[in-house]
Amino acid sequence: MAVEIFGVPGLPEIAAGTDLAIAIASAAATAGTPLASGDVVVVTSKIVSKAEGRVVETADVQPSPFAAEWAARWDKDPTVIEIVLREARRIVRQAGPILITETHHGFVCANSGVDQSSSGASGRVVLLPVDPDASARRLRAAWASRGLDVAVIVSDTFGRAWREGQTDIAIGIAGLDPIHSYIGQHDPHGHEFRVQAVCVADELAGAAELVKGNVSRIPVAVIRGYPWTPDDAATIAPVLRDQSRDLFR
Amino acid sequence: MAVEIFGVPGLPEIAAGTDLAIAIASAAATAGTPLASGDVVVVTSKIVSKAEGRVVETADVQPSPFAAEWAARWDKDPTVIEIVLREARRIVRQAGPILITETHHGFVCANSGVDQSSSGASGRVVLLPVDPDASARRLRAAWASRGLDVAVIVSDTFGRAWREGQTDIAIGIAGLDPIHSYIGQHDPHGHEFRVQAVCVADELAGAAELVKGNVSRIPVAVIRGYPWTPDDAATIAPVLRDQSRDLFR
Repeated sequence: MAVEIFGVPGLPEIAAGTDLAIAIASAAATAGTPLASGDVVVVTSKIVSKAEGRVVETADVQPSPFAAEWAARWDKDPTVIEIVLREARRIVRQAGPILITETHHGFVCANSGVDQSSSGASGRVVLLPVDPDASARRLRAAWASRGLDVAVIVSDTFGRAWREGQTDIAIGIAGLDPIHSYIGQHDPHGHEFRVQAVCVADELAGAAELVKGNVSRIPVAVIRGYPWTPDDAATIAPVLRDQSRDLFR
Repeated sequence: MAVEIFGVPGLPEIAAGTDLAIAIASAAATAGTPLASGDVVVVTSKIVSKAEGRVVETADVQPSPFAAEWAARWDKDPTVIEIVLREARRIVRQAGPILITETHHGFVCANSGVDQSSSGASGRVVLLPVDPDASARRLRAAWASRGLDVAVIVSDTFGRAWREGQTDIAIGIAGLDPIHSYIGQHDPHGHEFRVQAVCVADELAGAAELVKGNVSRIPVAVIRGYPWTPDDAATIAPVLRDQSRDLFR
């Protein structure tokens, strides 16, 4: 039984107030691949943020002395650095021009996930959604109201420790448990599995990137044929390692 | 255009000397999905290791005083800890019962990737392949000699910093550049992309895990329809961040 992944092309430019659930479902139908119950729909956070109006005019922002000084030292836009700091609850690493923060959500990533490159205009930046789980739940609920039982992942592209290259990971989820646990299960020889919990949400988000790409302007992918059990209590929270358990923060 | 992922069921038990290229190709053909040029074949490192005889009898190993003391403190098998240390070139974190090492290959992972759970017998552990790139190249070459242009990824299941749950990642590769670079490219508005390099190898390995699973005993998956340009110089090396560039090691 194969899992199939395909992009959803033909989405309109997304702006504040765009009904994403309608836009995505329409684009998928127009492409000849209408959404179906059982699908996992992976949506790039950027378009979620745009639809939710999480775009900031940098001209409206007054940099703090700390932001201004660091920006000057590393030839960065001080207003953008100020926005990055406001989106953070903690700086995890500040080394040379690199700023790794822990966002208010608890994500550890570069520049609090603030995106200068895809704002559609100079002087504007796109922030991560305020509550990506809620964004995912709204999409799932909208499609459920049309009779579709679809899981939703809001994804972003993050760097990692130790390994070069970024990968797409899940920052919000609805309908699907992000962690598949093998705890308590044993192999045919009676050993406990070395692998105890797999973050399938991140694997699904990464798989979706393979068809979305970052230059193809296809911000939505559908994963079809992946078995999941509907769970309306699912959130991304179990994926966020508590600082007390984290050896690298 | 969809990307398709399917498992290769029906592989025999793999032992030292098993010809993996033949075993995988035969199983895929028997399953009705013969390998085809353009496929990316993702092989769990465990069966590569078994085929290459990377299995150690713990009874043959004499623990060092350091290994013995730490094992006693945390109720671990001292011979296994000794093997873990021998597979490491550096201990990255040693905290409570957790041992994060940098392997001789340069991978940062728990217990040097030494696997107690899937050895097929008590008193034996499976090590990572000596040179996973070479393992991948041998498979690619064997299939090439039958006229198939297939990329190969050797995968393993690793934990990450900051996030709970493990994911499958690439530890060896042949035929396919593991990093897709966007450096120097610009979006339609003239901005440089925030995402500069995507580790597609890890996304492909993670996608494969979705059909392999850790209990399903399907250690090989085929990814079909993912576009890649054959590159016989490809190795996993560019994915391994140099310690001098790593803020978390």
